[in-house]
Amino acid sequence: MTLSPTPAYLELCRRNQRHYRLHHAIGILHWDSATMMPPRASGARADALAELESLLREWQTDPALATLLAQADAESLDPLQRANLRESRRVWLRATAVPPALATQRSLVAMRCEHAWREQRHRHDWPGFLENFKPLVELVRREAGCLADALDVGRYDALLDMHEPGLRDSEVSRLLGHVRNWLPGLIGQIRERQRSQPCLIPQGPFALAAQRDLSEAVMRALGFDFQAGRLDVSSHPFCGGTFEDIRLTTRYSEYDPLAGLTATIHETGHALYHMGLPESLREQPVGAPRWGAIHESQALMLEKQLGLSPAFIRWLAPLLRQHLGEQPAFATDNLIHLFQRVEPGFIRVDADEVTYPAHVILRYDIERALIEGEIEAEDIPVRWNAAMRELLGIDPGELYGQGCLQDMHWACGMFGYFPGYLLGAMYAAQWAARIRREQPDLEQQVEAGEFGVVIDWLRQHIHRHASRYDSNELVRIASGEALDPDYLRQHLMARYLDD
Amino acid sequence: MTLSPTPAYLELCRRNQRHYRLHHAIGILHWDSATMMPPRASGARADALAELESLLREWQTDPALATLLAQADAESLDPLQRANLRESRRVWLRATAVPPALATQRSLVAMRCEHAWREQRHRHDWPGFLENFKPLVELVRREAGCLADALDVGRYDALLDMHEPGLRDSEVSRLLGHVRNWLPGLIGQIRERQRSQPCLIPQGPFALAAQRDLSEAVMRALGFDFQAGRLDVSSHPFCGGTFEDIRLTTRYSEYDPLAGLTATIHETGHALYHMGLPESLREQPVGAPRWGAIHESQALMLEKQLGLSPAFIRWLAPLLRQHLGEQPAFATDNLIHLFQRVEPGFIRVDADEVTYPAHVILRYDIERALIEGEIEAEDIPVRWNAAMRELLGIDPGELYGQGCLQDMHWACGMFGYFPGYLLGAMYAAQWAARIRREQPDLEQQVEAGEFGVVIDWLRQHIHRHASRYDSNELVRIASGEALDPDYLRQHLMARYLDD
Ligand SMILES: [Zn+2]
Ligand SMILES: [Zn+2]
Repeated sequence: MTLSPTPAYLELCRRNQRHYRLHHAIGILHWDSATMMPPRASGARADALAELESLLREWQTDPALATLLAQADAESLDPLQRANLRESRRVWLRATAVPPALATQRSLVAMRCEHAWREQRHRHDWPGFLENFKPLVELVRREAGCLADALDVGRYDALLDMHEPGLRDSEVSRLLGHVRNWLPGLIGQIRERQRSQPCLIPQGPFALAAQRDLSEAVMRALGFDFQAGRLDVSSHPFCGGTFEDIRLTTRYSEYDPLAGLTATIHETGHALYHMGLPESLREQPVGAPRWGAIHESQALMLEKQLGLSPAFIRWLAPLLRQHLGEQPAFATDNLIHLFQRVEPGFIRVDADEVTYPAHVILRYDIERALIEGEIEAEDIPVRWNAAMRELLGIDPGELYGQGCLQDMHWACGMFGYFPGYLLGAMYAAQWAARIRREQPDLEQQVEAGEFGVVIDWLRQHIHRHASRYDSNELVRIASGEALDPDYLRQHLMARYLDD
Repeated sequence: MTLSPTPAYLELCRRNQRHYRLHHAIGILHWDSATMMPPRASGARADALAELESLLREWQTDPALATLLAQADAESLDPLQRANLRESRRVWLRATAVPPALATQRSLVAMRCEHAWREQRHRHDWPGFLENFKPLVELVRREAGCLADALDVGRYDALLDMHEPGLRDSEVSRLLGHVRNWLPGLIGQIRERQRSQPCLIPQGPFALAAQRDLSEAVMRALGFDFQAGRLDVSSHPFCGGTFEDIRLTTRYSEYDPLAGLTATIHETGHALYHMGLPESLREQPVGAPRWGAIHESQALMLEKQLGLSPAFIRWLAPLLRQHLGEQPAFATDNLIHLFQRVEPGFIRVDADEVTYPAHVILRYDIERALIEGEIEAEDIPVRWNAAMRELLGIDPGELYGQGCLQDMHWACGMFGYFPGYLLGAMYAAQWAARIRREQPDLEQQVEAGEFGVVIDWLRQHIHRHASRYDSNELVRIASGEALDPDYLRQHLMARYLDD
């Protein structure tokens, strides 16, 4: 037996593998909790999950890891191994930067805040929410401070970095500033143009089984592999499970069949990313997808770039009529109008792709200032409503459940995630522009239900790289240039203002 | 803060709790593998389960546990705590008695043997099976030897003890000897009597959804709590999940609707045991059910004692017709004949309650002699076929898949479990006799669909005790006397020979 030349690196891989397998168990149990678990089991399940999660934290913060990481760094590694070492260090840094007592306290306060929020949002109870939220913000600031020290960046930078390695506030501010300049004008132009457009609403009810069959047919056409994943129902759609066993969920509304279908297409985009990760890297950190904006771009690529395109809707329309029955609202032209309808509204998750950026910009402004200590939690409602008026011309007043209480993110103590939704749309626009350049007959293919050209491009240029490159490198390798927010503007102009 | 007077015992409980929570995760993942998991995930799932199971073994064999058990023994404990200490020691003893290298090797060889057996039984390939089975038997003998040393009993005793604490071969031999004396004669008498009995076979197909609804209705009537469990489909019915989240599975056959229903009722008996365990002991070894014969008795109580009784079938018949449609075979009298049909056959799991004991006796004779080294694996087929001729008057010849290759138990290296099936039937007969004595109007209640009197008796006298008493104490506490195999004979005589 010869001694391996990289003993520390190999031991690190062995540990990563163990962590991954525990992740697998946690992922499936979380999915089960949301889809299958009978209600009386929730207490025991929470205990079991807490046990596994604390065990994972224990493993990830083992002091021996610091030594291993340093030793592996001195070994002679190839570029892929080096990337894996970098990603392993990232996981370790995030697990160890925050003192365990602070992390635990933050997690408890966040759970309490989120739990109370579930009711408070329906009662528009901002003062009640504030009671839990103020101490939570304080704890998140301290946690962000610890991460900021470890990374040697600002507090909000540190939170952005959690979701998107290397992303800094200066960049987010530049990118969102670009959109801020042209968005209100563009919304106005499109609204003006759509004013006289007829648009029939589908008349339900639509059987849930038929909606499910339709969803599955569309997923299959997009390349979802039902030998490596499932589709089930949960109250909030998500893409769960593990990379090799993807548990996608959706929800169906009896009277709004397009909502469930849209959610399914979105989650299928997330799922295909996992299905396209290289098998050989599966259990290592470098084999994970890029989370944050890159992941969101995979979902938005399918949901918006592809799913709202007239070519896709022309392919979809007969399939939809076949499953849900004929009616005037399902005429192809009307479906295009329905899917492409632009209308300012209070709720982010219901927003169309044109007004959606406004929802992100508003949240970014507030959460950045909150984390940096420029404003306090009490200041949120006034700022929220003012920004809604300025960006979309509407004001939720004291109906906080339709305003600053609508999202789960802040109630869970999750800050720095919102910009990823808009950056994801920018990335998706850039991928789509690249594919169009490479494939002059893209539209004909899509209309014929041949989506391989889109999916294969994503597999080839994004999925197979997993976490080998950081997002800046990845966008250059995939599209040949740095992220350019003007692709999003060009896309919206072309789709909504050209003829 | 005052120091607890039982620090070692409390630390032991804390560790038991951790083990239990890991068990919860393992239980749900196993259920998911059999019911929900897409096929391509099986490799990753096996890895994740192996990781969790090796972690559990690591925890259970932690040398600190030996010290804790000794220290707790010297603390002042109440009787329930003492029972919990006894059960904790039992778990520890079983985990530590076998050297890890031997346990691992046995587990690998067993997996290989079982995997090959899945095909070999269909090809009746006894020589092929023998290649894997001979080394497996050798390893099981060594493992049993280690357990026997730790318990200071014989090798086969040690295997019996794994499933039923305190059960010894001398007792099994006595109990099965009792049945051996009267069984062949009884089978002959019943067969003679049923010879002229008309019996129509149901004419399918029967929709699986209707069978599922019928199963659920029967489960509900028997007291299964769908807020604390589920019913799903798997190729082999089982009662999985965890005590607080019971995942029961069944299978439906389009042409044999009684098979799926019978399996469901059997598994519901197992499930009700778990549902009746005391919440306060949930995470401790003393809070577990008694496995082996006691557990089997809960299933057989519902499936055979209750489920094959004319009163139950009179209640079931209209419900069955309502779900599956009217036909001559579903006339109440014919259903009674169908359910109570006695016919010697090759396959244990298809056997009626009268010929079933013969299948157990035959396996017991062979596996006991095999473990004790009185025979070798090569001797099995000849012995098997001879015993089949002697006990049931039929001979599978060289169709080993219908003979000694039919069960998974031996192929998995599981010995000492078979007697529990017959002891379970004896226990069930004893419970039923006791309930009949206490409830003179039992039949009327059952016919009216009021099963509370049966289920409540089981809850009160069996379920709520969990593992507080060993099986001998439990049977005395529950029924007022020691296990008496004559109850089974009396039950079969009354059901099949009285008028
Ligand atoms: Zn998404
Ligand atoms: Zn059973």
